[in-house]
Amino acid sequence: MAENGEPRIRLGMVGGGTGAFIGYVHRIAARLDDDYELVAGALSSRPDVAIESGKNLRLAEDRIYTSYEEMAAKEAARKDGIQAVSIVTPNHMHFGPAKTFLEAGIHVICDKPLTSTLEDARALATIKPKKGAKFLLTHNYTGYPLVRQARELVKSGALGKIRIVQVEYPQDWLTEAVSSKQADWRTDPKRSGAGGAIGDIGTHAYNLARFVTGLKLDALSADLTSFVKGRKLDDNVQILLRFQGGARGMLWASQVAVGHENGLKLRVYGEKGSIEWVQANPNEMWYAEFGKPRQLLTRGGSIAGNVAPAMNVRIPGGHPEGYLEAFATLYSQFAEVIRGNGKAYAGILPSLADGVEGMEFITAAVQSSKNDGKWTKLSDV
Amino acid sequence: MAENGEPRIRLGMVGGGTGAFIGYVHRIAARLDDDYELVAGALSSRPDVAIESGKNLRLAEDRIYTSYEEMAAKEAARKDGIQAVSIVTPNHMHFGPAKTFLEAGIHVICDKPLTSTLEDARALATIKPKKGAKFLLTHNYTGYPLVRQARELVKSGALGKIRIVQVEYPQDWLTEAVSSKQADWRTDPKRSGAGGAIGDIGTHAYNLARFVTGLKLDALSADLTSFVKGRKLDDNVQILLRFQGGARGMLWASQVAVGHENGLKLRVYGEKGSIEWVQANPNEMWYAEFGKPRQLLTRGGSIAGNVAPAMNVRIPGGHPEGYLEAFATLYSQFAEVIRGNGKAYAGILPSLADGVEGMEFITAAVQSSKNDGKWTKLSDV
Amino acid sequence: MAENGEPRIRLGMVGGGTGAFIGYVHRIAARLDDDYELVAGALSSRPDVAIESGKNLRLAEDRIYTSYEEMAAKEAARKDGIQAVSIVTPNHMHFGPAKTFLEAGIHVICDKPLTSTLEDARALATIKPKKGAKFLLTHNYTGYPLVRQARELVKSGALGKIRIVQVEYPQDWLTEAVSSKQADWRTDPKRSGAGGAIGDIGTHAYNLARFVTGLKLDALSADLTSFVKGRKLDDNVQILLRFQGGARGMLWASQVAVGHENGLKLRVYGEKGSIEWVQANPNEMWYAEFGKPRQLLTRGGSIAGNVAPAMNVRIPGGHPEGYLEAFATLYSQFAEVIRGNGKAYAGILPSLADGVEGMEFITAAVQSSKNDGKWTKLSDV
Amino acid sequence: MAENGEPRIRLGMVGGGTGAFIGYVHRIAARLDDDYELVAGALSSRPDVAIESGKNLRLAEDRIYTSYEEMAAKEAARKDGIQAVSIVTPNHMHFGPAKTFLEAGIHVICDKPLTSTLEDARALATIKPKKGAKFLLTHNYTGYPLVRQARELVKSGALGKIRIVQVEYPQDWLTEAVSSKQADWRTDPKRSGAGGAIGDIGTHAYNLARFVTGLKLDALSADLTSFVKGRKLDDNVQILLRFQGGARGMLWASQVAVGHENGLKLRVYGEKGSIEWVQANPNEMWYAEFGKPRQLLTRGGSIAGNVAPAMNVRIPGGHPEGYLEAFATLYSQFAEVIRGNGKAYAGILPSLADGVEGMEFITAAVQSSKNDGKWTKLSDV
Repeated sequence: MAENGEPRIRLGMVGGGTGAFIGYVHRIAARLDDDYELVAGALSSRPDVAIESGKNLRLAEDRIYTSYEEMAAKEAARKDGIQAVSIVTPNHMHFGPAKTFLEAGIHVICDKPLTSTLEDARALATIKPKKGAKFLLTHNYTGYPLVRQARELVKSGALGKIRIVQVEYPQDWLTEAVSSKQADWRTDPKRSGAGGAIGDIGTHAYNLARFVTGLKLDALSADLTSFVKGRKLDDNVQILLRFQGGARGMLWASQVAVGHENGLKLRVYGEKGSIEWVQANPNEMWYAEFGKPRQLLTRGGSIAGNVAPAMNVRIPGGHPEGYLEAFATLYSQFAEVIRGNGKAYAGILPSLADGVEGMEFITAAVQSSKNDGKWTKLSDV
Repeated sequence: MAENGEPRIRLGMVGGGTGAFIGYVHRIAARLDDDYELVAGALSSRPDVAIESGKNLRLAEDRIYTSYEEMAAKEAARKDGIQAVSIVTPNHMHFGPAKTFLEAGIHVICDKPLTSTLEDARALATIKPKKGAKFLLTHNYTGYPLVRQARELVKSGALGKIRIVQVEYPQDWLTEAVSSKQADWRTDPKRSGAGGAIGDIGTHAYNLARFVTGLKLDALSADLTSFVKGRKLDDNVQILLRFQGGARGMLWASQVAVGHENGLKLRVYGEKGSIEWVQANPNEMWYAEFGKPRQLLTRGGSIAGNVAPAMNVRIPGGHPEGYLEAFATLYSQFAEVIRGNGKAYAGILPSLADGVEGMEFITAAVQSSKNDGKWTKLSDV
Repeated sequence: MAENGEPRIRLGMVGGGTGAFIGYVHRIAARLDDDYELVAGALSSRPDVAIESGKNLRLAEDRIYTSYEEMAAKEAARKDGIQAVSIVTPNHMHFGPAKTFLEAGIHVICDKPLTSTLEDARALATIKPKKGAKFLLTHNYTGYPLVRQARELVKSGALGKIRIVQVEYPQDWLTEAVSSKQADWRTDPKRSGAGGAIGDIGTHAYNLARFVTGLKLDALSADLTSFVKGRKLDDNVQILLRFQGGARGMLWASQVAVGHENGLKLRVYGEKGSIEWVQANPNEMWYAEFGKPRQLLTRGGSIAGNVAPAMNVRIPGGHPEGYLEAFATLYSQFAEVIRGNGKAYAGILPSLADGVEGMEFITAAVQSSKNDGKWTKLSDV
Repeated sequence: MAENGEPRIRLGMVGGGTGAFIGYVHRIAARLDDDYELVAGALSSRPDVAIESGKNLRLAEDRIYTSYEEMAAKEAARKDGIQAVSIVTPNHMHFGPAKTFLEAGIHVICDKPLTSTLEDARALATIKPKKGAKFLLTHNYTGYPLVRQARELVKSGALGKIRIVQVEYPQDWLTEAVSSKQADWRTDPKRSGAGGAIGDIGTHAYNLARFVTGLKLDALSADLTSFVKGRKLDDNVQILLRFQGGARGMLWASQVAVGHENGLKLRVYGEKGSIEWVQANPNEMWYAEFGKPRQLLTRGGSIAGNVAPAMNVRIPGGHPEGYLEAFATLYSQFAEVIRGNGKAYAGILPSLADGVEGMEFITAAVQSSKNDGKWTKLSDV
């Protein structure tokens, strides 16, 4: 990927104006491997912010838009129009742009969760994209090389049949009542959807477990809590998991777990082995074979052997890669998909179907919790 | 404690013959602080083993017994008879000896869980001990200095109101079907009771959380699994917890979690702070205040201040103490209780009431799991 | 930095053809914050590789050069010629290009060590750059946010007067005799200079200690060893350090330390506090105040307070940044220097003077080792 | 060992009165495995303290002595006299008692370093013990199971020929000028000898490296510093090491390294593998084979295989053992030596010869430092 002479893909962006967190991350991800060139944007719902932000990003004046509909229409009509668009708005503003651009024949890169309601998600899944426009959901943690390697280890049978999946995602930034651009929409049911922590980070945890194990979740029993007075959405999520095939699991996500910045952690136990990976130090992963000492695998380290291209190890072991690199891997591999060279990433890059499943997970968790933890099947929501 | 000229307490032992694990541990614990002298034993239900074991422990011939009933009767009648007895038999053999010795006016030190059934536990709680005979349940993990300090931190309000309790106890020694002295009785409902992992280690995890937080458990929703073919009792336990006052928690105990030797770990999160403690490296504990860097406390380290006597720090920080020292702390502090100097340990040393509560926890978990995870109150079992 | 509308700086590159490690790193660093645009290159001393590599990087045909002299001359003559150049050749090929471009009025970004001989380094320091052309030495580890914070902590007096500096940089990739593009020139005195491990990684360790503590090294006593048969340069370096003002230290660098990928680690102890930082997990740093529990600081975490702009924290704590981001920070801050906005980075970005000092360190170490560890002053070489 | 019916060894103690640190440790070590019975003592040079301390330890009145000479004479004359004695006085008071008891035919267990001068050490080595009285030097860190396993790994060739030995022992308790029973004699040349940190902890570090690698030290180059104003002995020690056979090493010991309680750490690198062990968490050890992921060995864990009896693993992996257990292992294995069953421990238990070598190390370090770091051979002091 990158640096092979192929032209850059022309990219637009919806949302992500100056000061936004995730839009900034998407832009770095897009340019890190040199596969994209940002040429257009509808960067804010506020026209002044949209224009100022566009200038800051050196966009040509006629490609700074104040509505995504306009951008879709005009760019689709240009010869040198954007080939792909990144949607980095709050959850309730994913559906509209995603539908519009797909139907305009423009590839879509969309932040997670897919939408703010399961209905929207399912509706989006029925869209017929024009000209084979493709879709990427940025479940960015799946881009970490060792997460990919964990998935390979499971697939290879090294862990044996999976029995137990323990996944957690504790944070502490909502420990107290706070108000900020980031906090406000995430704790507002209108913009975030019916889930708080469950939608913002629980879905990451679920997706990570799903991605690494390949197991489908059969049913869950959830206890969603809101600890901070006046908060309308859950800020703490505790869930029992039953996977198809018999594996059991637990999922904990919290925004009030003092001392945790971003403590995403996955542990998978099979009949023969286990792995443990922690996002805060993503260049290491524990691997245990039953009856042998635990081994500390490193990104690109010795056990990796012939590292699969999907792992995208840019620099040798010991030179840590991080969050931005993992994010960039999704972008650069999606570029290959767009160019028609994406075979190696089939089933690996997070898809629209994954997005729908994520919304089913959120919906089932909210329902189960309302029903006092009743075991709820994903297929029943 | 110890080394203050007070005479040693004369101790007997039931169970713990040559080759037993926990009896050996109890003996080291008894002598480490020099507060006890082992002088009598009914060390095995097999007479030959009882006699051989007694000789190995240098017991006088007339104080090597082949039944605990005989030992209770004869020792109670001797002027220099035992003052206390350690019961280190499998679970179903706790009730009989405990009742007998208490009624003989001999202090009892009993391994956990208290009994193999809740009925036995409750029956034991109604016994009238002769001559004020006292009872100690060896929930040994409560003897670790940093566990005591964690409890003090919670009590002091440093963590604020507790919101979340995450506790786990993974092991891997029963990953495959095995047969050994240790494994056999622990996987046999007749000797172990209705719980497998839940009774053997889940109860430790529960007790630890209870001890540190001081919170009473209101209800639980459990999913008990038996992964190994042919195993009659659970080997994996996943439970949602609701404490009185609103705190929520999760408890995971497993005997099939590949890569874990004895991974007891407790995390407690309050409105203002949190702690994290891992038994495998018990001389360190994380402490976080909201909005400040996490601190790594050490056993006897700087933050401990005037270390409470209950913490029993024998040697300075940096010289690690371990499992045996924690166990010994229970023994030596119980010696003080026996001597009438035990005020400082009131509410700290695990009691018969704690044992009953532990059996309620096990029973509720088994019931809840049979009822497909129905929330079950401890007060309803 | 970046994303503020300022035009990108036009960049050229010397060395770094397809397959090179450090050139690739420089290119990612250059584009990560969107401050540069690579428009010209003399990417290899082999014309075919130079041309092929230029195409892969989408350079215009007339800006793919086969000699750096030609590139300097032609680019200096173009109106849209490069404003800066990255030199990423083996050590002995730093001097020529650096001199040429500086004298052509083009800013220079040069990999470390500065040159292959102290003479070259000193000669370079006497060059008169045309049009105020500036120089950046990519001692990339100084770009890590927590390294910057460590420096701030020392400067603030939080550690008190520094007493002890322990720094190490163990690797294991040259444990056996190997031959590869990377290994060959690094173990060849003609291309690498008189130092092996001392020049390749020892100089990084030294620079890191120097950067964080601000202390000047007075003298050293070195023991350089070559463990692998037939190797012409040192592969293991052990040095005692005496700093001006009385602090003492040790430096260990090794390419044969089995089990270490890239184990750069710095520890600094003062009269009141200490810090410890490990490159492999660069988002955490230990900070100890005497008599208090150790604290684990995180990149962008709570203690950082008003994070100085020099720290360049792109994403919140818990989202790990790595090697490429630290490298990119040097690039983007040098862009500010080029644009005349570089005040905040004065004394922070590694300079030509730092490069000369690095060569004095290497030279003193080699001399001391030849003299059986005689204490050697940097001012005497 | 222990619990096999053999009678306890009758033990006396010189030094170790109430309030002493190391005497208390020796007593716990003596009783932990039930191989000794403390029956006599000359516990302090102050008669009142000696008597009070003896009572606290329940010694018979006629076996509480106020001079060690008297104790040696009277105990040697008793039928039930002590068979062994523990010497736990400050360094300058090791020689007299050791000589006296050995010549009285009583086994000696002596704290380290052997003496306060090399002359005393060498003189002691020429003593002819009566009745084959034996000698144990309590270099207690060699009693840790994983330290023993490290030694086995080296001996087995798993690491290949040793190239590099990095050992360190940082503490911070003397960071400031302090006065206490423990601090006073350790910083007083008259009681401690010519070395401060070098004698108190440097010698532990050296002994540990020597024990694990089996390598003899050829020469050293030392830089000893005293950072605290008014302190008469070194409080920081930095040494380059050259072992016979070509291995190189570094040793750092410090009493002013803020943030370290007792940071003894050993790393050994060979041509094929390496190990790393840290005393503060002694139940884990890193083991790396070149080209493979690092493995985390545990005390009694899976790789231990048929654990050699020398390792003395009392309880299963995951149940941490600590400092006292390691100390106790020296005691219980020396008990076997006394009983004539000590074959398995030949060359393992620290001996008088090890004590002499330790004094040569201290002496060479002090000399080298006085000679501005001149390489000094141990054979030349």
